[in-house]
Formats: sequence, C-alpha cells, structure tokens
Amino acid sequence: MEQTYYEKKEAGEAAVDLIHNKMVIGLGTGSTVYHTINKLGEKMKDEKLDVTCVSTSSNTTEFAKQLGIKLVALNDVQDIDLTIDGADEIDGDFRAIKGGGGALLFEKIVASSSRKVAIIVDSTKYVDTIGAYPLPVEVLPFGYKYVFERMVREGFQPNLRKMGNDPFITDSGNFILDINVSNIIDKVDTINLEKYINNIPGVIENGLFTNIVDVIYIGKKDGVEVKNREKGD
Amino acid sequence: MEQTYYEKKEAGEAAVDLIHNKMVIGLGTGSTVYHTINKLGEKMKDEKLDVTCVSTSSNTTEFAKQLGIKLVALNDVQDIDLTIDGADEIDGDFRAIKGGGGALLFEKIVASSSRKVAIIVDSTKYVDTIGAYPLPVEVLPFGYKYVFERMVREGFQPNLRKMGNDPFITDSGNFILDINVSNIIDKVDTINLEKYINNIPGVIENGLFTNIVDVIYIGKKDGVEVKNREKGD
Repeated sequence: MEQTYYEKKEAGEAAVDLIHNKMVIGLGTGSTVYHTINKLGEKMKDEKLDVTCVSTSSNTTEFAKQLGIKLVALNDVQDIDLTIDGADEIDGDFRAIKGGGGALLFEKIVASSSRKVAIIVDSTKYVDTIGAYPLPVEVLPFGYKYVFERMVREGFQPNLRKMGNDPFITDSGNFILDINVSNIIDKVDTINLEKYINNIPGVIENGLFTNIVDVIYIGKKDGVEVKNREKGD
Repeated sequence: MEQTYYEKKEAGEAAVDLIHNKMVIGLGTGSTVYHTINKLGEKMKDEKLDVTCVSTSSNTTEFAKQLGIKLVALNDVQDIDLTIDGADEIDGDFRAIKGGGGALLFEKIVASSSRKVAIIVDSTKYVDTIGAYPLPVEVLPFGYKYVFERMVREGFQPNLRKMGNDPFITDSGNFILDINVSNIIDKVDTINLEKYINNIPGVIENGLFTNIVDVIYIGKKDGVEVKNREKGD
C-alpha cells in the first residue's frame, strides 16, 4: 500500500471523532471518505451511536447501506450538523477543488446545507494554492458544446471527461468538463470565479468550494494535522 | 378571442420576417411562439425555405414535427443565427423574465448560443420595469428545500410550482420555485442578481435574461412595434 493510502485512512478515521449521538451527518464521496464511513459503521455498533446520514452519491449510498448506516433524503432533514468530505486540492485559505470523482453537485448542496464542513485529505492534496488540479464543471448535455467552445475561447482549455469512449455521466445525468484555472487562480477573486462559471447557461455547478470549509484534517506521515478556520475568515 | 390573442399572433408572425433561407433558428416555447412556428411552417412550404431549427422544449418539438419543420440537436449545430422566443415580462432596458411555461433552462442556453435574439410579446408584457411577474428559478429536486428555506430567509417569498398536488417537473426533471423580486429589482444590479441566484447550490438556472435580447416585437392594437437594442447597450 502506498503512503497516501495510510494518510487517507488516518485522516478519514480521525474525523469520525467529530460525530456524536443524534447528529445528522452529510457523507461525502471518494477514497478518503470511504474510511470515514467504514469507521462510522464500526463506531455505531461499538458505541450504540444513533446518527442519521445524508449521502452525496450512489456509491456512498451503496456502501453506507452495506454497513447498516441509516440514510435519509436531504429534503427530509431540517439541518445537517456536520458534513465530512474529501477534496482533490485544498489550501490554507480553506479553498477547495472538488469533483474529481464526479459527485460535486450533490456534495456542494449537502455542504451548503451543513452547519459545519470537515474536509479530509492526504498530505499530497494540501497545497499552497489550489489550481494545479483541473476544475470540474458539471454541464447539461443539452448544449454542452456551446459551453465547451466558450471555455476554449476564454482560455480554460476544457476537456470533456470520458468513461471509455463515452462521456462520463454524473448521478444527475450531466457531463463534466475539466477546465484549467491554474493561470488565473491567483489573479482573480475565487468567489467571483465560482459565480462567473455558474452563470454560464448550461453550467449546473462547479467544483470550487470557496467559502464553505470549517476544518481540514490532513493525513501525514507522523499523524493527522487539524486546521480550524478562524472565526470571521 | 381576447385582444392579447391577436397581439400575440401579430407579433409572433411578424418575427418570421427575420428568417431567411439556410438559417439555423432557435425556437422558443409558449403561446406567442406558437404563432411563429405555425407561420414558419407555412412560409417553408410557400417559399420552399430551407431552414434548420433547434427546439427549447418537448412541446415545441412536438408541434414543429407536426408541421414538418427540420429539427436538430443544439450540439449538432455550429451556431444559431436567430432565436425567437416569448417572455413573461420585458422592459425598455431589454431585460426579460422568462420561465412561466417552465422551459427557461433550454431557452436560456439556446438564446445564449444565438447571434441574435428576438423576443415577441403582446402589449401587456411590455412593462416599465420587470419584476411584477414572479421570477422562475429551476432547482434540483435533491435538496430543493434548502434552497426554498434560504429564499424565505432572504425575503424572496418562494412558491414551489405545482401541477395539481405534485411539484411541476421541467423537461430536465427539476422543480421550479417562483420567487418575488419586485421589491429589490430597482435596488440591485440585475446582472448581479442573476449571478447571485445561479450561484446558490441546487439552483440550475433562473429566468432573468439581462443581457441577451437584441430586438423586441410588441403586438399592439394597431400593429406591431419593433424595438432594436442600440449597439453598445
């Protein structure tokens, strides 16, 4: 196993400490959250913990069901106390790029509905400045070529994400364009970039999470580093 | 028949004059565009006009097919020369509210892909300032309650659009929240309002068309008034 595997496991499991009895938990998606869900399943049995979870993808739903974790629809809860999710990149300004796994739309809605958001990553994903990782943009198949060509004209170098020879399809039936923001990320206000992309007709959502993360768990060789966002940041 | 019926018919038919041989035309949706499509069907037969159309809704697709109008997918055309569509409200600043019929998402994508956009309305829909008409916001069913409650908190007085006892479902499988912007429309930059709403996670698109309309055809008692947007507006 690689070093990053252990770091993901350490970070993913450590965040379970945030989960207490009677909480409503948002469960993210991906290889780091896998360890959170797995550990939560154990903790629920060992400590007779009663928690209710909201899933962000068909993959997470399937895995949580196998472990007997109680799942409800987002529309059936009043609030989410805490969401635990991974990221493809996150920096010291608590800005993240998410969506490498294609679940960014539900992940962003669930995170936005949460009182607290914890991001769990291995040490390779905690970076000085986000942007080396391509930014996933979820687009409606109807008219996606227009969005694609507009992105080309504006220098975003889009790639239509593929699954074999066909476009990758999200849980909502949409496509993903992976775009390059590395050249501009330091020259623009990231919140405005997030809004700008979302306002292009045909764009459903994008993987910039600029103002939503409260705490980061970073798996490292020698343990887990926890970074809490300062109040008022 | 009411006066507005004749005004819709006059405006809808007059805009067909903009259509010439070999053009790619975006066809909107609704009771005014109905007359455009009908007239276009006649003109294609009478003048052996060869045009290709892109539809914005299942209703428009069905009607155009009945008339033998050639339809292609938006992704199969390079550009749209002209889109003709209705509006629920439009004002002298060429700002429109659309989506009363629930087709705003495809309508906005098609309009954005068009070199020229013509809006056709009866005289009751041409107003001093838009905003009396509720603004339709298309939202993902997943998590729509969160968007709904956020809209309540922010004073938008949302209504979930219903079809009988069930939520109205758009062609993309989403819900519509009709929100009240009448109190703020004069106090904010409409372009920023459009962006702000689109950036709420779970919002797919909204019916504000702020910077996209080139010409307005207004059906009136005594004929059709045509308003062209000044260059540089």
